[in-house]
Amino acid sequence: MSKGLAIFTSGGDAAGMNPAVKCAAEYAARRGYKPWLVYDGLRGLIDDKFVEADRELISGILHRGGTFLRSSRSKRFFELEFREQAFLNLKKRGIEKLVVVGGDGSFRALNQFYADFGVPFAGIPATIDNDIAGTDYCLGVDTALNMIRQSVDSIRDTANSFSRAFVIEVMGRHCGYLAMVSALACGAEVCLTPELPYNLDSIGGRLKAEIKGGRNYVLAIVAEGTKMGDYLTRWITDSIGMEARLTVLGHVQRGGSPTVRDRLMAYKFAVAAIDALEAGETNSVMTYQDGEYGSLPIQTVCDSKYELDPLLLKLCTNLSN
Amino acid sequence: MSKGLAIFTSGGDAAGMNPAVKCAAEYAARRGYKPWLVYDGLRGLIDDKFVEADRELISGILHRGGTFLRSSRSKRFFELEFREQAFLNLKKRGIEKLVVVGGDGSFRALNQFYADFGVPFAGIPATIDNDIAGTDYCLGVDTALNMIRQSVDSIRDTANSFSRAFVIEVMGRHCGYLAMVSALACGAEVCLTPELPYNLDSIGGRLKAEIKGGRNYVLAIVAEGTKMGDYLTRWITDSIGMEARLTVLGHVQRGGSPTVRDRLMAYKFAVAAIDALEAGETNSVMTYQDGEYGSLPIQTVCDSKYELDPLLLKLCTNLSN
Amino acid sequence: MSKGLAIFTSGGDAAGMNPAVKCAAEYAARRGYKPWLVYDGLRGLIDDKFVEADRELISGILHRGGTFLRSSRSKRFFELEFREQAFLNLKKRGIEKLVVVGGDGSFRALNQFYADFGVPFAGIPATIDNDIAGTDYCLGVDTALNMIRQSVDSIRDTANSFSRAFVIEVMGRHCGYLAMVSALACGAEVCLTPELPYNLDSIGGRLKAEIKGGRNYVLAIVAEGTKMGDYLTRWITDSIGMEARLTVLGHVQRGGSPTVRDRLMAYKFAVAAIDALEAGETNSVMTYQDGEYGSLPIQTVCDSKYELDPLLLKLCTNLSN
Amino acid sequence: MSKGLAIFTSGGDAAGMNPAVKCAAEYAARRGYKPWLVYDGLRGLIDDKFVEADRELISGILHRGGTFLRSSRSKRFFELEFREQAFLNLKKRGIEKLVVVGGDGSFRALNQFYADFGVPFAGIPATIDNDIAGTDYCLGVDTALNMIRQSVDSIRDTANSFSRAFVIEVMGRHCGYLAMVSALACGAEVCLTPELPYNLDSIGGRLKAEIKGGRNYVLAIVAEGTKMGDYLTRWITDSIGMEARLTVLGHVQRGGSPTVRDRLMAYKFAVAAIDALEAGETNSVMTYQDGEYGSLPIQTVCDSKYELDPLLLKLCTNLSN
Repeated sequence: MSKGLAIFTSGGDAAGMNPAVKCAAEYAARRGYKPWLVYDGLRGLIDDKFVEADRELISGILHRGGTFLRSSRSKRFFELEFREQAFLNLKKRGIEKLVVVGGDGSFRALNQFYADFGVPFAGIPATIDNDIAGTDYCLGVDTALNMIRQSVDSIRDTANSFSRAFVIEVMGRHCGYLAMVSALACGAEVCLTPELPYNLDSIGGRLKAEIKGGRNYVLAIVAEGTKMGDYLTRWITDSIGMEARLTVLGHVQRGGSPTVRDRLMAYKFAVAAIDALEAGETNSVMTYQDGEYGSLPIQTVCDSKYELDPLLLKLCTNLSN
Repeated sequence: MSKGLAIFTSGGDAAGMNPAVKCAAEYAARRGYKPWLVYDGLRGLIDDKFVEADRELISGILHRGGTFLRSSRSKRFFELEFREQAFLNLKKRGIEKLVVVGGDGSFRALNQFYADFGVPFAGIPATIDNDIAGTDYCLGVDTALNMIRQSVDSIRDTANSFSRAFVIEVMGRHCGYLAMVSALACGAEVCLTPELPYNLDSIGGRLKAEIKGGRNYVLAIVAEGTKMGDYLTRWITDSIGMEARLTVLGHVQRGGSPTVRDRLMAYKFAVAAIDALEAGETNSVMTYQDGEYGSLPIQTVCDSKYELDPLLLKLCTNLSN
Repeated sequence: MSKGLAIFTSGGDAAGMNPAVKCAAEYAARRGYKPWLVYDGLRGLIDDKFVEADRELISGILHRGGTFLRSSRSKRFFELEFREQAFLNLKKRGIEKLVVVGGDGSFRALNQFYADFGVPFAGIPATIDNDIAGTDYCLGVDTALNMIRQSVDSIRDTANSFSRAFVIEVMGRHCGYLAMVSALACGAEVCLTPELPYNLDSIGGRLKAEIKGGRNYVLAIVAEGTKMGDYLTRWITDSIGMEARLTVLGHVQRGGSPTVRDRLMAYKFAVAAIDALEAGETNSVMTYQDGEYGSLPIQTVCDSKYELDPLLLKLCTNLSN
Repeated sequence: MSKGLAIFTSGGDAAGMNPAVKCAAEYAARRGYKPWLVYDGLRGLIDDKFVEADRELISGILHRGGTFLRSSRSKRFFELEFREQAFLNLKKRGIEKLVVVGGDGSFRALNQFYADFGVPFAGIPATIDNDIAGTDYCLGVDTALNMIRQSVDSIRDTANSFSRAFVIEVMGRHCGYLAMVSALACGAEVCLTPELPYNLDSIGGRLKAEIKGGRNYVLAIVAEGTKMGDYLTRWITDSIGMEARLTVLGHVQRGGSPTVRDRLMAYKFAVAAIDALEAGETNSVMTYQDGEYGSLPIQTVCDSKYELDPLLLKLCTNLSN
């Protein structure tokens, strides 16, 4: 009998989770595993929501946003008795390895699970915040960026038609990655993030000079974590003298059919995850760094701090001053 | 020398304004007029921002959102001296007729202008609120609805992935048209609008029954004018017991490349407007009613109250109870 | 026990079929019927592919293109013995009425079935050709038009960048509706259809004059039924002297998430179909004419010839000469 | 007086050209150059189509597909007398450096120009074929891939609805990159490219087994360069027994608003190009390799052969057998 391997998604949903699940299941089968899927993330591990990954189930999911396996945040998994229950659910089906698609919180939880019961896992990084240490890319980021782009391009139509300023708040509690990249990609004039110090005085001087020179609208992108959306909107109206409006993009950013980049990364991460498990790795996270796919022990990931690309920071400095 | 005719956009921007301007200019030229364009709406009439509508200027605008002529709200136009200034700008160029693409506020302003100086105009209705009396359709509505659809379809990915409720606020201060149609088109479970009385008790009973029967997420669409977004979100969390989030779609709804319907309606309205002016109409608004294009005197439009399609109201009653 | 009612899709697939199936099933249930779905169209009727329309099955289909019930063309249904087999499949489940979403070929087949066994049906018109007599609109048309629009807008980028002509062939064997509307909506310079006589000499003169006046690219849209794609492409290159390329849009036009218009029309047609069956109509087709929803006996539909909107023909005459 | 620097696009158009031009102009100005733009590529260099890159001209182009500067293929540039004419056009404006956004053919032409007249240039790779040696990425590729994805996702709706096979031909004369990546990203069952040997017998066996196991549709992606579109379509119909249709995606792939990735890469390539010129490089091409931006002498690029990513080849081997 072939050995069981279970796949599930955990934490905040991100585009690319579905392709990752599909590819992991298919590649696992090709490598001789019997693939299982678990609904509802860690909660489903405890509550025994397992299903065999047959062709029917995973066909037609590649192009769908979110995660059809659903996700959750589970407090019970912090307690040993529930983890034990999850372990028994695995054991009775002969499932010996896990692939989890999610964020670093989920990886830590599984690391504890490995310490308890010795079930190896491979983590596939997926979060639109792109803030997992050790990897340049997390699933969902490219799709989120393109959803933002479409929204900002649309708002620009009105900004330009009406000679107005628009402040657009994008997701990112502790990380300004989405804000910075979309500010560059959409040609915003201002970008405020948690990482970069900003100077409203110099921004104000710059904008006034440009408006004098003919600029008739302004786009400003702020990261959620700065909590500057409201303030900046009023400030532009009052100090710059251009009527401003705030748009909080919200959960529109999370959804949408995964882009090619997210599908392809999902494919490659999934292959890497199965290969890592086969090679005997027990608790590692897949990474993409400097153009290379690899993996890092979860401990290394947890002990490191995510650092933004210095070139990106440099390019955005102009937009914060 | 051919007689001059000026075209401009006024009021809130809406997709379809650019195609309407392009088609009006082209068709006017074919009917022997010399077409002019005015930047910045009524403000541009006063401030003399006229330009001849040559081929170069209006090529490549058909598929662009917003209005490349820009729009404005002008207080000065309420004063006779500024209207006189506008009239002189027309006179010195031999412009004898006007086509305005905008809302009923703009039409009223031009009606006063006609009373003052006898310059006939034809109004093309354009507002995403779809609340101009006498016409079933205003330019921009179909594009706005499809922008909303894409956002809601995207949010549904997350709602479904995470077993959550989402409350989505769409535009519409006094009119629930956008909310109702998008609620039906996106399969929302709840829809609150200014037009329909709603009953949270019965909505609550219905949702609880459905959740018991397996429903794992809820989409609710509310019109801006109800001011119920925040309240409904808390109410779903507290009374229904499903975690809920609010998304205010904001100005994303206004932009985007015009849909085929908005381009085609723009085309037909533009032809109707030039034809009406040629037929000697002096102050009428183009209409589309019961499948027919026509026109109504501006006074009739102003004296009537916009009424929503009764079938639409009936279909949405279920979603408000 | 509630009376059974079966819903299925038949003929070429069209966006809007899924919303029509969902709405018909939900509304039928609300009116006291027990709704069934049939896979694979007429073939499934014969081969007994019925399933009860429970909530789970029809949730999450509203925004999907094509038809999840699948469709088919069945030759066997022309033979009485197979129709009898289909009838027995209905009888054993207590299914007394049918709703079919498809084209006029399917409606005719069911009319024969009604003549044989007295099972009433209501037809919902769905075909991207928009060529069913008696109704101004068939499901799928708006989505197809917007898919074409996006493709043509994209091709325009290259045409403009490279000073080239592009001939774009759109679907439509006997009907130029898609070609005409998309030519107007996309600002094409040339449009060839089966309905309108065209004159290459006058087209050539017009294009040459415009190129002389600064035009640097040309878009031409031809209906599949004219078989003029290849010829026109060579002719533009040779006679006009502008390098031309042909793009056959093909099946890209059929798919895509249904637009708001197709979803809303689906909703209203579905309600009309159930209401018609309840009112005792036995073999009618739902229609939308001059802004009103109604129904016509299938015989009337079959005996009539589809006629294009005269205004549309008039507007397109310029593009064929 | 600040030194002149001219920017233009050349060769086949690709999304990302407009952002590259905008960013290069803005960054050049910030580094003390006076930026010029040239219309119509090499032809415009000869025919003196220069314009100063002022703010107005380059605002609002970031999100547009194709190249607003237009492109061309110029035979005259192969002749010294015309190159001399181009040089004089540069000289009279004090233009001392060139930035060209295009393919390797254009880079070679400028290398000859450098040999003749000593005008340094920096090349930014842009071609949807992604076949320039020395760089993992060329502008336009990500946008093209996502256009293909949308088309294939749409065709899948019909394939699935109708139990059919679809063969989709994508661009790529000598390079199967687009075909391979889109086959993986869209979950195609078959992929034929110039790079990978394929075996119809084994493909046939595989498909028949899957159809027996329940597969009801097939997607096959072929690169233009294989010329296998027609043959494969007939072969699937005849040998596999599933009705098949061919769709040639054509120029739809070239257009569309640039994705975030193409805009960001454009930004970074543009900065690298100006920096390279400032650092004294005279004839180099910007590259992105293993996650790092850099540059290579044009001679090195020309002497190398483009090689596909081995992992990609490995993943696609399954689809060719």
